[in-house]
Amino acid sequence: MADQLPSRSENFSEWYNTIVQRADLADYGAAKGTMIIKPYGYALWENIQTYLDKRFKKHGAKNAFFPTFIPLSYIQREKEHVEGFTPNLWLVASGGGETLEEPYAVRPTSETTINMTVRNWIHSYRDLPLLLNLWNSCFRYELRTRLFLRTSEFLWQEGHTFHASWDEANEYALAILTDAYLDFYANAAAMPSLAGRKSEKEKFPGADITYTLEQMMGDGRALQGCTAHNLGHNFAKSFDIRYLDRGNELQYAATASWGLSTRAIGAILMTHGDDKGLLMPPRIAPTQIVIVPIFGKHADPAPVLAAAKQLARELADYRVEIDARDDKSPGFKFNDWEMRGVPLRIEIGPKDIEKNQVVLARRDTGEKKFVSNAELLAQVAQTLDSIHDTLYARAKKFQDDHTFSVDTYAEFQARTAGEGGAGFLMAHWCGNRECETAIQQETKATIRCIPFVQTKEAGKCIRCDGASQERVVFAKAY
Amino acid sequence: MADQLPSRSENFSEWYNTIVQRADLADYGAAKGTMIIKPYGYALWENIQTYLDKRFKKHGAKNAFFPTFIPLSYIQREKEHVEGFTPNLWLVASGGGETLEEPYAVRPTSETTINMTVRNWIHSYRDLPLLLNLWNSCFRYELRTRLFLRTSEFLWQEGHTFHASWDEANEYALAILTDAYLDFYANAAAMPSLAGRKSEKEKFPGADITYTLEQMMGDGRALQGCTAHNLGHNFAKSFDIRYLDRGNELQYAATASWGLSTRAIGAILMTHGDDKGLLMPPRIAPTQIVIVPIFGKHADPAPVLAAAKQLARELADYRVEIDARDDKSPGFKFNDWEMRGVPLRIEIGPKDIEKNQVVLARRDTGEKKFVSNAELLAQVAQTLDSIHDTLYARAKKFQDDHTFSVDTYAEFQARTAGEGGAGFLMAHWCGNRECETAIQQETKATIRCIPFVQTKEAGKCIRCDGASQERVVFAKAY
Repeated sequence: MADQLPSRSENFSEWYNTIVQRADLADYGAAKGTMIIKPYGYALWENIQTYLDKRFKKHGAKNAFFPTFIPLSYIQREKEHVEGFTPNLWLVASGGGETLEEPYAVRPTSETTINMTVRNWIHSYRDLPLLLNLWNSCFRYELRTRLFLRTSEFLWQEGHTFHASWDEANEYALAILTDAYLDFYANAAAMPSLAGRKSEKEKFPGADITYTLEQMMGDGRALQGCTAHNLGHNFAKSFDIRYLDRGNELQYAATASWGLSTRAIGAILMTHGDDKGLLMPPRIAPTQIVIVPIFGKHADPAPVLAAAKQLARELADYRVEIDARDDKSPGFKFNDWEMRGVPLRIEIGPKDIEKNQVVLARRDTGEKKFVSNAELLAQVAQTLDSIHDTLYARAKKFQDDHTFSVDTYAEFQARTAGEGGAGFLMAHWCGNRECETAIQQETKATIRCIPFVQTKEAGKCIRCDGASQERVVFAKAY
Repeated sequence: MADQLPSRSENFSEWYNTIVQRADLADYGAAKGTMIIKPYGYALWENIQTYLDKRFKKHGAKNAFFPTFIPLSYIQREKEHVEGFTPNLWLVASGGGETLEEPYAVRPTSETTINMTVRNWIHSYRDLPLLLNLWNSCFRYELRTRLFLRTSEFLWQEGHTFHASWDEANEYALAILTDAYLDFYANAAAMPSLAGRKSEKEKFPGADITYTLEQMMGDGRALQGCTAHNLGHNFAKSFDIRYLDRGNELQYAATASWGLSTRAIGAILMTHGDDKGLLMPPRIAPTQIVIVPIFGKHADPAPVLAAAKQLARELADYRVEIDARDDKSPGFKFNDWEMRGVPLRIEIGPKDIEKNQVVLARRDTGEKKFVSNAELLAQVAQTLDSIHDTLYARAKKFQDDHTFSVDTYAEFQARTAGEGGAGFLMAHWCGNRECETAIQQETKATIRCIPFVQTKEAGKCIRCDGASQERVVFAKAY
């Protein structure tokens, strides 16, 4: 038998590190801080891509490709941007044995190279909006890495859109946040999100406003699930992107950018699961159903395997695996697939074949029941939906149970003490960066977002007693 | 009116360079030799990906991700491999301001890094075959570049598979060549291929055998459309990949790799087309149908636009664009979409609405006909299929017309003289690399492949009169 899995409830961090590798999702690459995504992990990413890509296209975005190498001078063109990204750049110094005159940065994000190009594509209001999205690799030098959560190279999509006005850029960023990302997390990943905007300190280097979805992981830490930035006229001015409006006047364009990365996989893994292992949300699970044929000790395995294959054909609309390994017991297989988080298991043995039935076993509740062949398709559809709903409800309850209104710094410090997560701490803040920095230094909690939805309420900053008009959300975060 | 397009028949090279940019397929990036793929070009790539990905999965391959940065020492591990790739490597020298102890190569191909990893995944015969595929960016320093054909970074898929025996690796490489690539080119891209194996000189560095599909471009030059390599035990020995067989004996695995890149886009563009512009094969065309509403000078445009939108809804199974630009004439639009190669155009005006009909115009033949609304769906399906067939037949005829059996070196030299393409030259060759190199130096023609299908026939080497058992295919190639 395999080594015992660390307990999720007692040692969340160990549980995560162990299960990502044991479930064959990912492993470390040879180059510093890089990640290999194995087929089981990559299939999850493909399902995320498929879901999101449709949503982006519904919003008019078109996919394109921009080179991985970006002249360093491009990145240096937007002041805040260069300060934000320089410490994490990977640099290419030579090609074909020749030293480059100017080193290339390996894509930390594509705002600069896209803006430098697109300025030549935009002439009049007829060329706007221009809505681009890229699926690619992103490179940021990291010293402390963790699979899916922080690696020196990760996969993501980066949307870059060009609009006639600041308001339109803002509206588009918000539409992607809610109608693509929030929808994806809720309806595909079975995860609730807290939507809001970032503080000035936490926003994207070069943005006017950064919008974010924050999620709560199983240890009470926050994770930023994605961001959408209204870049206002900042990049358009740095890169001189202007267009002739309907009145034939030259105007600066406004731009937005928005991204979601393989970090979302980490978020999904850390939201769902238990001491037995992972729990994949059914709609994007790499394997939705595993069929385990129960051969019986003395019976002929052939008819059972044939019945399993017939079942798989009937379930062709789902992502199905048959576990026909001949050197593993059913009990081993059950544990193995539970560890990998496959939401639904179907068991079929000689007696079930006789009775025209199978056993359906849910990963979320452990419930097992007999289902007749006639009812199979309806029951499978209904059970997968029910698992989705259960996962969402559990995650929502966990988030609610770990969201606290905090009104004194003493309580704030008590809640953030120790190594674990602190939940979402709803507290008043004066709006000053100094206070925000001090709170972070003293408690390791950062402002995750200023939420869109809350009861507006005047109060006093948790740390300095300065005036505040609304609560912000603090948390210890990944 | 836009500048005249260079004539495809008179100046093929100019035609290609101009149309790739004018049709908004791609442009050069800022970093040396890199390429920006614009939405129209990228959509073609997405359609190629979708088609191939299904075929690969049907053959059991699973997608995964391996890091872009590869320690240089990995690449140096396979002798032929390092010789083949070193001249074209891009090197990363620093990250986060720190100089790396060992530079990283930016992925020129992933054999080495995959083998170094997968050796730990393979223990027994139960772990084989292991069938991986990667969709990623590939980096090779190039001095002379051309959009889609040769760039310092391109997109591709690279399959890497691990097998129990040399024969099985060989069989898999051949299955991908014929059942994925050949099928794709014939049934999606409307292109005939010449299938065969490479000479020792032309094979992949580290392969036992390289299989290839060679296609003939519109100027009589050859293009290598993809390759599949039987790597035999070469990489398994260099990277010590062994498994316990059924008899509990340690055996070296055998490996294969296979790839198709964005070069395929170049091949498609250079196979189909005419002096008016591109001609996209209907099954993977980014836009299959363009609807041009004909507003008429004094009529109300609203009902025509509404009818065009209704048409688009009825054709929702296709990739459809409506060209509703209000500052362009129908004639301009017709030329524009013909230049971009959209296979089918539908025109609809006030009179057509009255008569419950539309005009269908084929890009390949120029034929226009009225079609009643009732017959529209059937006619569209049939016409797109017919365009596919026409394109394939034209390309096949062109290939046949430009394939020559050549029996004297004088004729060989005459056919390869000058700047243009020479077609496929079927000639006898002694099998010696010296002769092959001399022929290349003297005529610029290389051996494209030793074709699978041909009449076996003894003869004498075209250059040295040495004995030969079969003809090989020479061509001037991209």
